[in-house]
Amino acid sequence: MTAERATGNVSVPITRFRAGAWSAVEDTVAAEEPLEVRLRWQGPSGVEQRSIAVTMRTPGSDFELATGFLFGEGIVRSREDIIDVSYCTDAGEEQLQNVVLVTLRPGLTFDPARLERNFYTTSSCGICGKATLEALEVQGCEVLPAEWAVQPYLICLLPRALREAQVVFSRTGGLHAAGLFSRDGALLDLFEDVGRHNALDKLIGSHVLAGQTRIPGGILVLSGRASFELVQKALMARIPFIAAVGAPSSLAVQLADGFGQTLLGFVREDGFNIYAGRQRIETPRAPG
Amino acid sequence: MTAERATGNVSVPITRFRAGAWSAVEDTVAAEEPLEVRLRWQGPSGVEQRSIAVTMRTPGSDFELATGFLFGEGIVRSREDIIDVSYCTDAGEEQLQNVVLVTLRPGLTFDPARLERNFYTTSSCGICGKATLEALEVQGCEVLPAEWAVQPYLICLLPRALREAQVVFSRTGGLHAAGLFSRDGALLDLFEDVGRHNALDKLIGSHVLAGQTRIPGGILVLSGRASFELVQKALMARIPFIAAVGAPSSLAVQLADGFGQTLLGFVREDGFNIYAGRQRIETPRAPG
Repeated sequence: MTAERATGNVSVPITRFRAGAWSAVEDTVAAEEPLEVRLRWQGPSGVEQRSIAVTMRTPGSDFELATGFLFGEGIVRSREDIIDVSYCTDAGEEQLQNVVLVTLRPGLTFDPARLERNFYTTSSCGICGKATLEALEVQGCEVLPAEWAVQPYLICLLPRALREAQVVFSRTGGLHAAGLFSRDGALLDLFEDVGRHNALDKLIGSHVLAGQTRIPGGILVLSGRASFELVQKALMARIPFIAAVGAPSSLAVQLADGFGQTLLGFVREDGFNIYAGRQRIETPRAPG
Repeated sequence: MTAERATGNVSVPITRFRAGAWSAVEDTVAAEEPLEVRLRWQGPSGVEQRSIAVTMRTPGSDFELATGFLFGEGIVRSREDIIDVSYCTDAGEEQLQNVVLVTLRPGLTFDPARLERNFYTTSSCGICGKATLEALEVQGCEVLPAEWAVQPYLICLLPRALREAQVVFSRTGGLHAAGLFSRDGALLDLFEDVGRHNALDKLIGSHVLAGQTRIPGGILVLSGRASFELVQKALMARIPFIAAVGAPSSLAVQLADGFGQTLLGFVREDGFNIYAGRQRIETPRAPG
């Protein structure tokens, strides 16, 4: 084990709309990158190695993260179960410090078949189902065309409209919401869940069940933060516009920008930040 | 497909501490229950069926959730790919409406080997790694002894101490934090991440790497909501006390209560709610 980098945030250029005025500023977003956890152990016929988890995380304390994950899953039960934790340096592996290799002590029983039986994906994680970091790219998605734009003041009204429509939140304070609005600000759909990814899965699933696999005219409003997984799910359904009440992650910004999707963060009654896709906001007096 | 229940919240009895006064009231928490998604398809040698995902969700719109999840993973691409979505009624299966069966159209290629290769768990989801709903119980955990208690006013100071110690949050607004405090309110550890489960994995992993698999003297302070997975991870490390700034879910309350763990929600400068484990709060004038 060696010292590792600790980089919690990333600087990105944004366009800010606040109290009717536009400005071009640098904003800081939380760094989000995939981490793959690989396990190495002594099997009956020699050393075995296998990738067992991929998670989207903020870089830093990666060895602790891998160890805590294995502990929570019951794969290691003490410090003595681990011989070494290191960034993977396999031949041909680009060293991005995004793959951590944990080597188990000899004699520690580990049955890879258990993984196949017991490890399932979950809709709270869009990165599940990706075998390698390289497979992260959204498959089959093309750049979204910019067919329409909306007034900034309309956007500022959406979070309140979402909150007022939330039937459960006001009583529990515990539910995330994903709402779909039309271009003129009418609420079309609203789904809630303890898991933010579930709320979006419910919204998109309702459209798929109704025969619609593309939602090109919608504005997706999220009650919380915008992560990579949420942007990915929205891209799969060709939703061109995301307005999040919370902050976006670095990878969410990168993905939205790469596919021409509009991504707004910190959407409030008096303004918002544009992280990607400025072309869908009418900005007559925008700088630059 | 038939109509389904929609139950977004659950009523629980709590003890509330606010502005120096105690009260016993009913509180409403967001319902959280596991949902298992099973897939049925026509294989080369007959009908095959397999459980492919378990997620913690708020009951309601379960068919939409299952469909949206399969769409996001690219397993179904349109409404026509699905013959039927229903609650599972297999013989011997207790009908709890927590298992949804999706039947694919004949001819739709689905390779279960793809799941084994590509579907990984993630530390953003504690339910991963559980083959069935029955396996949800935390394995090998005993009820936590009540060896100490703290003054309520000390607890009210912890969220601010956590925020002030967060180096990244103040700049990005985008990171969850998990902090460990001593019984007298000293900050021992702080980890941040875009994923709340990662922040806790990092905290617990740092202790495991230091040779400690039990943290019986600590107060875990969470910057957000308390879900089932976070309570489960804390139980694995024998942390007896959780103080969350946000709301707990119904299953988080149930799990904490079942293992004698203290779970507080909505912890603010002027008070908090006790959802489980009241014995660790000094409440001289508590009702009941």
